[in-house]
Amino acid sequence: MLHLIGLGLADETDITVRGLEIVKRAERVYLEAYTSILLVDKSKLEAFYGRPVIEADRELVETGSDDILAGADKADIVFLVVGDPFGYDPTPTISKSQTNPTSATTHTDLVLRARELGIETNNVPNASIMSGIGCTGLQLYNFGQTVSMVFFLDNWKPSSYYDRVRENVQIGLHTLVLLDIKVKEQSIENMARGRRIYEPPRYMTVAQCASQMLETEEERKEGVYGPDSLAVGAARVGAANQKLVSGTLQELSTVEMGAPLHSLVLLGRRTHDLERDYIREYAVNKETFDASYAKGYGASL
Amino acid sequence: MLHLIGLGLADETDITVRGLEIVKRAERVYLEAYTSILLVDKSKLEAFYGRPVIEADRELVETGSDDILAGADKADIVFLVVGDPFGYDPTPTISKSQTNPTSATTHTDLVLRARELGIETNNVPNASIMSGIGCTGLQLYNFGQTVSMVFFLDNWKPSSYYDRVRENVQIGLHTLVLLDIKVKEQSIENMARGRRIYEPPRYMTVAQCASQMLETEEERKEGVYGPDSLAVGAARVGAANQKLVSGTLQELSTVEMGAPLHSLVLLGRRTHDLERDYIREYAVNKETFDASYAKGYGASL
Repeated sequence: MLHLIGLGLADETDITVRGLEIVKRAERVYLEAYTSILLVDKSKLEAFYGRPVIEADRELVETGSDDILAGADKADIVFLVVGDPFGYDPTPTISKSQTNPTSATTHTDLVLRARELGIETNNVPNASIMSGIGCTGLQLYNFGQTVSMVFFLDNWKPSSYYDRVRENVQIGLHTLVLLDIKVKEQSIENMARGRRIYEPPRYMTVAQCASQMLETEEERKEGVYGPDSLAVGAARVGAANQKLVSGTLQELSTVEMGAPLHSLVLLGRRTHDLERDYIREYAVNKETFDASYAKGYGASL
Repeated sequence: MLHLIGLGLADETDITVRGLEIVKRAERVYLEAYTSILLVDKSKLEAFYGRPVIEADRELVETGSDDILAGADKADIVFLVVGDPFGYDPTPTISKSQTNPTSATTHTDLVLRARELGIETNNVPNASIMSGIGCTGLQLYNFGQTVSMVFFLDNWKPSSYYDRVRENVQIGLHTLVLLDIKVKEQSIENMARGRRIYEPPRYMTVAQCASQMLETEEERKEGVYGPDSLAVGAARVGAANQKLVSGTLQELSTVEMGAPLHSLVLLGRRTHDLERDYIREYAVNKETFDASYAKGYGASL
């Protein structure tokens, strides 16, 4: 059987008891290590599980799925995924021709391949940022579709996310923005020379995301949001040092929230009073928060 | 410290290792037992934890929060919540004057009260149906806002959910519909006589939800969806006997999916080919599925 087991959001102790039992008795355990990261590294997982863990990079999962599935008709094979096995992939590989992230489908691909081979699958859910973001005090039923923000390059600043944000804004809903991470990226030179040398991992911060959002607005000028629009920055959701900050996009564009992973929520117009009270507590500046709030938010609007 | 600990979706082994450690050493452990249910009962949790668990009914949480928080400035007090502590509450108490469910805010209320008292809080996330629904193969970034369906009465058939579904449908997004549960409800007679006798719990099924959705459409006649609209029924997400079925709302209105809890997803127009392939595998009838799909779905529409 192929077991897809969620690891949750923070460290090695976020696995469920059910998941841990399966990991301990499984024949092989793979760790999906390119669409997201846990806040601890593989060696810590291995020490906690008392067994080796095989790192599964993008290449292995996308082209070597039959290696992963070998023997899974008879033995238990585990595929560990940070967050929930079917959760949103925060690091989509958006090519210039795509409007939708595609690597989010990698895990469903693996299940489809298992089905073709007649291998049973078992899903062990866990916390995902998609629900974990509720810790901000914003109600999950007030969220519209989730979008991703990739690192802008000088000559490539994809803004398809902006159209989706507009759809949410028009209805008055919050938008969860998931931030790019770059793990095991090669420089163009190393890639050209076929050298398996990887750049240090990079994680987008709340400040970078807010800046890029404002950059897109300046470019598109369609007024979907602006420097005074309110948002919530969340860092290390689910960890002991979780940090939440609310403020205008302008304020958040310079906020310092520490180590990864970060996420951002653009506040929707339909905000409930209780949501406002909750997020106001951790505002960068309660005065500017109140001023911006009064201009455009509240469930009655 | 007040610890809000998510229990996940299915049974006692779905708690995280981190959560279990806190439960074992805490001074008091409360189980929030009215907005959702685990598929196992309290005695099973107590046996698994090796300690007593106090059931917290609606009255205790809404009016006795200071009892729950007593001593939490010095000792560890645990508040267990099925799913994620800040997840969506699948059993809103929607009164006739409200358009938004309010009991979803109960847990944030408790945190706000703790803050007032200067008590620190700690959040231990877990799987929620809001992300767990990804096991259907539908991509979470293709979901719009989540809605709730309550049991219709002869003289009360709230259809505010229909307006929200329309907002999602217009954009082409999937809609997760969370289904009513009735736990510890009193009959009008027992309530009038002040007798604490409770009706057996009731859980809405996928078939009841699909029927009610069609009833609303017949009433409102705004063409948001119809008998041929495609949907996915999910039962016992995250449990070993999890069951998924796809089909038209007409087909789902008679489907038998077994024990609770059930959820339904109304398919959005923007469905990706990979999503279609995945959910077609568990269609009630692949022919009617293909016929309905051809009429109105696909990412290119």
